[in-house]
Amino acid sequence: MRYELYYWPSIQGRGEFVRLALEDAGADYADVARSPKGMTAMMRMMESRALERPPFAPPFLKAGKLVIAQTANILLYLGPRLDLVPRNEPARLWAHQLQLTIADCVAEAHDTHHPISGGLYYEDQKNAARKRAADFTSERMPKFLDYFEGILQRNGKGSGYLLGKNVSYVDLSLFQMVEGLRYAFPHTMKRLEPTHSRTVELHDRVAARPRLARYLDSPRRIPFNQDGIFRHYPELDR
Amino acid sequence: MRYELYYWPSIQGRGEFVRLALEDAGADYADVARSPKGMTAMMRMMESRALERPPFAPPFLKAGKLVIAQTANILLYLGPRLDLVPRNEPARLWAHQLQLTIADCVAEAHDTHHPISGGLYYEDQKNAARKRAADFTSERMPKFLDYFEGILQRNGKGSGYLLGKNVSYVDLSLFQMVEGLRYAFPHTMKRLEPTHSRTVELHDRVAARPRLARYLDSPRRIPFNQDGIFRHYPELDR
Repeated sequence: MRYELYYWPSIQGRGEFVRLALEDAGADYADVARSPKGMTAMMRMMESRALERPPFAPPFLKAGKLVIAQTANILLYLGPRLDLVPRNEPARLWAHQLQLTIADCVAEAHDTHHPISGGLYYEDQKNAARKRAADFTSERMPKFLDYFEGILQRNGKGSGYLLGKNVSYVDLSLFQMVEGLRYAFPHTMKRLEPTHSRTVELHDRVAARPRLARYLDSPRRIPFNQDGIFRHYPELDR
Repeated sequence: MRYELYYWPSIQGRGEFVRLALEDAGADYADVARSPKGMTAMMRMMESRALERPPFAPPFLKAGKLVIAQTANILLYLGPRLDLVPRNEPARLWAHQLQLTIADCVAEAHDTHHPISGGLYYEDQKNAARKRAADFTSERMPKFLDYFEGILQRNGKGSGYLLGKNVSYVDLSLFQMVEGLRYAFPHTMKRLEPTHSRTVELHDRVAARPRLARYLDSPRRIPFNQDGIFRHYPELDR
C-alpha cells in the first residue's frame, strides 16, 4: 500500500506526527503537498464535493479508497498496519488515549502564540499570548510532562517505552512533543528536563532509531520555523 | 457489563457526551462521582499509583478491568458495544474522526471564556475572552456548523443522520454540541440556525428519541450552568 499524506508543505505541524510513524516504519508514502502542484491537489481534495467523507482540516491520509483525517485517528489506523502498536484492543485504546493527550498538549502549545484567533497575526495578540504562555510554561507544561514521565515509570515492562516492551507510535509522538517544546520553550525545558529524565531518555532513544535518524538528518525533515505549531518567541519563554 | 463513568458531578462538560451514549442505549451504568462519596472515589482513582494506565483528566470509564479516558476514546470503545456505530472499520474511523472534530469545537467553545488559563477566573481574563469569543462566533462556529451541515447533506443514505442509515453516537454528540452552543451563544445560534436546518433537524430528532427524551427530562440531566464548558456570558455573544 502506497499511502498519500496531505499536509501543509512548509511546516512540521500536526502532520509531523504522521510523518514520523511512516518514516520509522519505512512505509511507502508520498508527502503530496510537497510535490509540484501538490498544494493544488490538496486544496482540490479539501473542496471536493465528490468526497463522501471530507476532512475538516489537514492532515489527512489517503489509503486506497479511504480518506482519514484527525492526526490521532490517522495513527489509530496506521498503528497496527505499521506494526507500531500492540495488537490487543486494550493496548490500542491506551496508546490512542496517550496520543489524544499529546494532541491536547500540542493544541495548548499552539494557543500560547495564538490565544485569540488563528486568523490574526501573533503581533496582534501578543499581550494575551504572554499571559497564556506564562500559564502554559508554569502550569500546563509541567503537568503534561509529569504525566508522561509517570507513565514511563509505571510501564511494568521496564522497557523505557510508554507501552509494553516495544516502541509504539506514541513514543515517536512524545519524541516530537519534546522536540517542539524544546524549540518553542528552551528556557522552560532546561528547567524541567532534569526532573523528567525518562522522557528525555525516550526522546534520545527514538532519535537514534536508524530510519528516524536518517529522516531527521534529511531534507524531508522540515526545520522548525515561525509558521508552525511550535514557535519560538523569547518573550513567551520566561 | 455495568459501566462506571467518572466525571465532575456538577456539570455536563465532556462527560455528557458519554452519558448521552449510555442513556440512549439504556446501558447499565453508575455515574460514580454523583453518588455519596463518589468524588472521593474519583479522586482516589486519579491519584492511585496502583493504576497502570491512569487518566490525565476526567472523564474516564471503568469497564471491567479497563480504565479508558479521553471522551472520544471512550466513545470509540463504547460505540460498537452499545450498537451506536456501524461495525465496519471505515465507518468506525469516520465516526471517530467526526467525534474528534466535535471535540475540537468543544475545546474552542471552552476557551472563549478561558482564553488565558483554566486556573484563573473568567473575570480575570474577560478582555481576552471578548476577543476570542468574537472570533469564535464570527469565524469558527460557522465553520464547524457548515462542516456538519455539509456532512448531513452528503450522507448518501438520506437518513438525516451523520453516517449511514442509523443513529450513531456522533449524532448524539452533535445534538449536545448544538445544545451547548445554544446555551452559550443564543444570539449567534439564532443567526446561524436558519442556514443549518439539517443540523437543527438532527438535534430535534435526537432529542425526541424515547430514552433520551426521558433522560433529558430527568434529574440525571444536569442543567447547563456557569461552571461548565458551555457558559453564557451575554458580552461574549454579540
